[in-house]
Amino acid sequence: MTDTLIKVDLNESPYTNEKIHNRWHPDIPMACWVEPGDDFKIETYDWTGGQIKNDDSAADVRDVDLKQVHFLSGPIGVKGAQPGDLLVVDILDIGAFESSLWGFNGFFSVNNGGGFLDKHFPTAQKSIWDFKGMFTESRHVPGVKYAGLIHPGLIGCLPDHKMLDMWNTREKKLFDTDPDRVPALATLPDTKAAHMGSLKGDAFNAAASTGARTVPPREHGGNCDIKDLSRGSKVYFPVYVDGAGLSMGDLHFSQGDGEITFCGAIEMAGWLHIRVTLLKDGMSKYGIKNPIFRPSPMAPKYDDYLIFEGISVDESGTQQYLDVTTAYRQACLNAIEYLKKFGYSGAQAYSILGTAPVQGHISGVVDIPNACATLWLPTDIFEFDIMPGSDGPTKHLNGSIDMPIAPDL
Amino acid sequence: MTDTLIKVDLNESPYTNEKIHNRWHPDIPMACWVEPGDDFKIETYDWTGGQIKNDDSAADVRDVDLKQVHFLSGPIGVKGAQPGDLLVVDILDIGAFESSLWGFNGFFSVNNGGGFLDKHFPTAQKSIWDFKGMFTESRHVPGVKYAGLIHPGLIGCLPDHKMLDMWNTREKKLFDTDPDRVPALATLPDTKAAHMGSLKGDAFNAAASTGARTVPPREHGGNCDIKDLSRGSKVYFPVYVDGAGLSMGDLHFSQGDGEITFCGAIEMAGWLHIRVTLLKDGMSKYGIKNPIFRPSPMAPKYDDYLIFEGISVDESGTQQYLDVTTAYRQACLNAIEYLKKFGYSGAQAYSILGTAPVQGHISGVVDIPNACATLWLPTDIFEFDIMPGSDGPTKHLNGSIDMPIAPDL
Amino acid sequence: MTDTLIKVDLNESPYTNEKIHNRWHPDIPMACWVEPGDDFKIETYDWTGGQIKNDDSAADVRDVDLKQVHFLSGPIGVKGAQPGDLLVVDILDIGAFESSLWGFNGFFSVNNGGGFLDKHFPTAQKSIWDFKGMFTESRHVPGVKYAGLIHPGLIGCLPDHKMLDMWNTREKKLFDTDPDRVPALATLPDTKAAHMGSLKGDAFNAAASTGARTVPPREHGGNCDIKDLSRGSKVYFPVYVDGAGLSMGDLHFSQGDGEITFCGAIEMAGWLHIRVTLLKDGMSKYGIKNPIFRPSPMAPKYDDYLIFEGISVDESGTQQYLDVTTAYRQACLNAIEYLKKFGYSGAQAYSILGTAPVQGHISGVVDIPNACATLWLPTDIFEFDIMPGSDGPTKHLNGSIDMPIAPDL
Amino acid sequence: MTDTLIKVDLNESPYTNEKIHNRWHPDIPMACWVEPGDDFKIETYDWTGGQIKNDDSAADVRDVDLKQVHFLSGPIGVKGAQPGDLLVVDILDIGAFESSLWGFNGFFSVNNGGGFLDKHFPTAQKSIWDFKGMFTESRHVPGVKYAGLIHPGLIGCLPDHKMLDMWNTREKKLFDTDPDRVPALATLPDTKAAHMGSLKGDAFNAAASTGARTVPPREHGGNCDIKDLSRGSKVYFPVYVDGAGLSMGDLHFSQGDGEITFCGAIEMAGWLHIRVTLLKDGMSKYGIKNPIFRPSPMAPKYDDYLIFEGISVDESGTQQYLDVTTAYRQACLNAIEYLKKFGYSGAQAYSILGTAPVQGHISGVVDIPNACATLWLPTDIFEFDIMPGSDGPTKHLNGSIDMPIAPDL
Repeated sequence: MTDTLIKVDLNESPYTNEKIHNRWHPDIPMACWVEPGDDFKIETYDWTGGQIKNDDSAADVRDVDLKQVHFLSGPIGVKGAQPGDLLVVDILDIGAFESSLWGFNGFFSVNNGGGFLDKHFPTAQKSIWDFKGMFTESRHVPGVKYAGLIHPGLIGCLPDHKMLDMWNTREKKLFDTDPDRVPALATLPDTKAAHMGSLKGDAFNAAASTGARTVPPREHGGNCDIKDLSRGSKVYFPVYVDGAGLSMGDLHFSQGDGEITFCGAIEMAGWLHIRVTLLKDGMSKYGIKNPIFRPSPMAPKYDDYLIFEGISVDESGTQQYLDVTTAYRQACLNAIEYLKKFGYSGAQAYSILGTAPVQGHISGVVDIPNACATLWLPTDIFEFDIMPGSDGPTKHLNGSIDMPIAPDL
Repeated sequence: MTDTLIKVDLNESPYTNEKIHNRWHPDIPMACWVEPGDDFKIETYDWTGGQIKNDDSAADVRDVDLKQVHFLSGPIGVKGAQPGDLLVVDILDIGAFESSLWGFNGFFSVNNGGGFLDKHFPTAQKSIWDFKGMFTESRHVPGVKYAGLIHPGLIGCLPDHKMLDMWNTREKKLFDTDPDRVPALATLPDTKAAHMGSLKGDAFNAAASTGARTVPPREHGGNCDIKDLSRGSKVYFPVYVDGAGLSMGDLHFSQGDGEITFCGAIEMAGWLHIRVTLLKDGMSKYGIKNPIFRPSPMAPKYDDYLIFEGISVDESGTQQYLDVTTAYRQACLNAIEYLKKFGYSGAQAYSILGTAPVQGHISGVVDIPNACATLWLPTDIFEFDIMPGSDGPTKHLNGSIDMPIAPDL
Repeated sequence: MTDTLIKVDLNESPYTNEKIHNRWHPDIPMACWVEPGDDFKIETYDWTGGQIKNDDSAADVRDVDLKQVHFLSGPIGVKGAQPGDLLVVDILDIGAFESSLWGFNGFFSVNNGGGFLDKHFPTAQKSIWDFKGMFTESRHVPGVKYAGLIHPGLIGCLPDHKMLDMWNTREKKLFDTDPDRVPALATLPDTKAAHMGSLKGDAFNAAASTGARTVPPREHGGNCDIKDLSRGSKVYFPVYVDGAGLSMGDLHFSQGDGEITFCGAIEMAGWLHIRVTLLKDGMSKYGIKNPIFRPSPMAPKYDDYLIFEGISVDESGTQQYLDVTTAYRQACLNAIEYLKKFGYSGAQAYSILGTAPVQGHISGVVDIPNACATLWLPTDIFEFDIMPGSDGPTKHLNGSIDMPIAPDL
Repeated sequence: MTDTLIKVDLNESPYTNEKIHNRWHPDIPMACWVEPGDDFKIETYDWTGGQIKNDDSAADVRDVDLKQVHFLSGPIGVKGAQPGDLLVVDILDIGAFESSLWGFNGFFSVNNGGGFLDKHFPTAQKSIWDFKGMFTESRHVPGVKYAGLIHPGLIGCLPDHKMLDMWNTREKKLFDTDPDRVPALATLPDTKAAHMGSLKGDAFNAAASTGARTVPPREHGGNCDIKDLSRGSKVYFPVYVDGAGLSMGDLHFSQGDGEITFCGAIEMAGWLHIRVTLLKDGMSKYGIKNPIFRPSPMAPKYDDYLIFEGISVDESGTQQYLDVTTAYRQACLNAIEYLKKFGYSGAQAYSILGTAPVQGHISGVVDIPNACATLWLPTDIFEFDIMPGSDGPTKHLNGSIDMPIAPDL
């Protein structure tokens, strides 16, 4: 029986759990300590800490309090870890709780979070995904079923003070270029809703006021949302503080490259079983700035694809310069238009792209002025044939089922 | 014996071959006509028309005349094809010529072409790759060998006048925002070095003056540089003019996602064997704007990866907003630093990323303000183990071999 | 929360559990009933019912009571199922119990069970394999680690009386050709140690005296030991009796093709999560005699192989006629000799072939008089490089660790 | 340009080509010599030397002279190779001739060759397969198309006298157990139709009278018919004579495991591009008796399967003991019955199993008395869906097309 070092109770607020935090700061005390070579389990909340429910209303998505995210389990201290080391994490397994075999996907309102296609889908919507063994399906998005490529959206070690300062400085600088923008250009430190583990009182206030938000991925990894950093992977994390301070959360049952729906992948609470070891002085030995990893030997084999191209001309017809982000947005929009021909609503198609093991490739990035990105849609996730044919597409869905929507109040 | 409809002679200038062109324009006459269902072969020059030689000097890369590129074979008229149709192209096979079993890769001088990492590699360099059956290896980049995922970097149908106007207008608008920039923001129509197939005299002049350059990918596909659109793929191209007018060229023996070295993948002359059919009125039936395709059932299995992350903070430490292009550049730079620990020069590492079947994924594109991109380096292409280990990296290469370099004159 | 319809207590004898049986007979009462479309969980004993322990002695393997095997969970009645239907079973997931995260592999004594290579390994030996998340490793077989391709070695529906008679008749006929052979040519009905679910008294005696042993695979599937009929598979089983009567057991964490060690794969107790549906009259519609199945979209990717050939000349040098069994035995022996060069004992090598996701292919079966079989040894399961090289093999293991052995008393 | 060391002219008899032989004997002179490290091309006849034509009659299959087979190109002498070495062969590429882009498959008459299912298909039949780039399809077997996993059915080094004697002795012993059997139990040396390269006169007679037939695979490899020993593989062959004497032929465009149709796979003439190196004293270093190999990084990805089981109860209902050959035959027969439900004739279904990249696995070989074998039918080779469904199978073929048949005269 493997020890569970951090437990969560989904019926209690994460704020009452001292082994949870939702900001990055070197002063957050270690939630527990382990030896190199140990393997153990860690439980996590879903990234919102339970704000989104298994129901048929998107009001909770519309009204989500994003200042709270992401609730992370940790930090885990690893004895002997020192700045400059690499912390090697074997993700031995990940799973949902038996009592909570479901996850959510959705789009935030453009006025509260937004997302990759928020100009096209500006209103909060939600889909619920049930887990049946290794598979998931949704009562809101018929005709698709996937085996899960389960992964933590967010995992990494504590920054030291110097790195934290750098993060805060550079993100503030960007934010200040358009401070009133909605959605904001960056999420800055905010004591409101901060949770700093077991820190209390003045120590809490001091840390919370400079604690970096968990939203973006950074040098330490963090919220990378890499679908292939999944159960079975071996990850090498830079260490910045004594003891490393590894935290993790934001579990996804399945996600497409880009996590374009933002809210999010198929988001779930659950547990990880990991083993930690140290590669001493690994950062300089291997020239490491960001984490590197070896993907798992076990992943769903959805390897027959229909591939959509996109170029960096935006929706207004304006030419952008070698902009992969724009090109990928066009590829996604092209795929959505295609799926609508089979009877899906645009929202359902968008949700599929956010939740299925879709690949997003950077295909050509030097052919001025257009970048080319490709979206790889796995065809085996559909119950029907979605390849083009001379008979034209068949509307397999009659539109009677759609995703709940919650207009802004 | 399959008919070869377009032949090239590598010892003659492409300008003397009336079935070759290097600009996009609806007035370029069809080089030949085929029936739907026909299969046939098409020969092509390398994209530069033979400017780069199989030798150990990078002077030709430095001095390349980029106004000439890309030399395409076509257009091929398909009887019955009409605007709005999809032209279905089965790429049955692609190969190099028996008399020319080599290709080149290189970096252009930042003053004549540039590339994805031109700030880091501003000087022209070149590597030559020999083909031995399905494999390639280079005398300038030791320790790696790959099976080729052979593909046309450039393939697509002629635009109609309306689409051509749109291309020219939007690219000119971008160009004009910084007309003196080096490298330029866009490549505009240029009669100098234009080759319009069999067009001569006034017709040539008229078409060449507005003929779109072949450099960027666009709505019709074109220079997408998608490594997986390879031999064995089935591609669905939008048709804009009667007869479709399919052209192709820029063959690559192997390429990494992004074709980051720009000059280019492993570039080669060669031939394609294709079959064409029509899906009538397919564009509206399937909601198609850009080409879509089904990848080949046959591709090299280099599926063990070491994955590098990059985020959209640029080399100066400045925070960019959800910019995948920047994030991928960082992932590439991270991989280069890593490979240098094994004894490669930076240039050799860069060349590997441009030529090997590297994957570039758009991993997280909503976690403001950082996009996350991942570069997947296949480990089986190396003769030695490149995984991290407790002994630290071994310098397998002693630096005695490097890629030729040609400083600007 | 999914319902568990059959539970087992590993601390109690399977003979006290009325939802367990170890013979095939149409009169065994259904342990439970479900509706088509239901999904549910089933728990199982290991195949021996707990006879083999997690320790370092092979005495339990030597002394095993094989009359008891295999303990199966079921039969499960499916409402509406009729003879001639196909029972479609989606294996949604399989796992070990949290309280029992280990399995065993071993070779039986040639005098009590034997095995594929019992002439070469005539003595009982055992290895214990620990499960760490999706991976397994053994304290008795160092240097290898695998992700599990978990599957039921045994699953199928109850025979009707006619089929049961046929089985008993044909196996008796074979047995009688050499009734004193050790190991026996067939395992015949034996009331001793029989467990017929909830049957008692005369009904028990009647059924036990003709109940077919569970050892061989037969028309209904049964003990096929097909490693790829794993979690995520969809299986189509012939139905012979009203209600189908599906039973299952003999879970394996991992196994090589052939299950050559007989005792067995990596044998474990655990649970299955399955969904059942009906394909009415499917046997005649599709011409089905034996089960067919679609393998899982999720399986460990150990796809780099070193392949060993074997031909149907036996160890004495005698030419056998197109005998794949002999050819595969030679391929296995060849692989064992090879692995010994790296420091493994023969027993350890044999154990690897029985437990790792080794493939056994029927490569040529018409080239008289030699069949050719190939054994595909996955190279990525080893911690060190096992490919041949000019330096000769390195002994990575010093022989200090071996598998427990228990000579016959 | 790669040197072609052995050329063939398909319009001339192989008997006039001194670099061709059709028996194994150490006295056959080397056809050419190469240095270790050399790469070069070798051309080959099809295995019958052109006896089977690209037409719509099976008379040539019925009347084939099997004493002539197989015509091999070689032997190639490798300088420095000595008995006990391993000859390492990199198969860099394989292809058909541009002038001969087709192959044949068929079943021999049971009275002249027979095959795996000759009791069920006793009469000569033939199908012709056209090659279109990397794909093949047949005018006699509609509805299927495959990319080729091209491989030499037969490749290996010359035996020494001692090994040759052993082969002849053990095969004669088997033959003598039933010398009148049709088909014969073994093919013994036969001077009639022998071709011993450049040997003439007495030397020819002496060698031909003891030269081993090329039909069976043996210790040296030879006619293994392993579909995965394909272009891109690296093979390690035992060396028995000075210079090694590597010969090869019997090229297959595609084949299923077992090559069950015997005549044969998709048989073709063509060329190989190989590189040879030596691993000195490799046989004892690595304990090698039969060849071992590493499969290619490039193979068609037909990895969605419908899997058929077979057990070792033969067609008469007789129980065979752990007989994989019988079990695989039953799995093949089960697959044929299944395919007939979609409109294929039995002969067409048989031909698909012999030519498509079907896998044949040894699934359980210890569960007395039944072996279990599985046949893996790739579903993506079919133009239509062949998975079972609630609507029952659709007859996609109307029976208007079948394979030519030629009854015995």
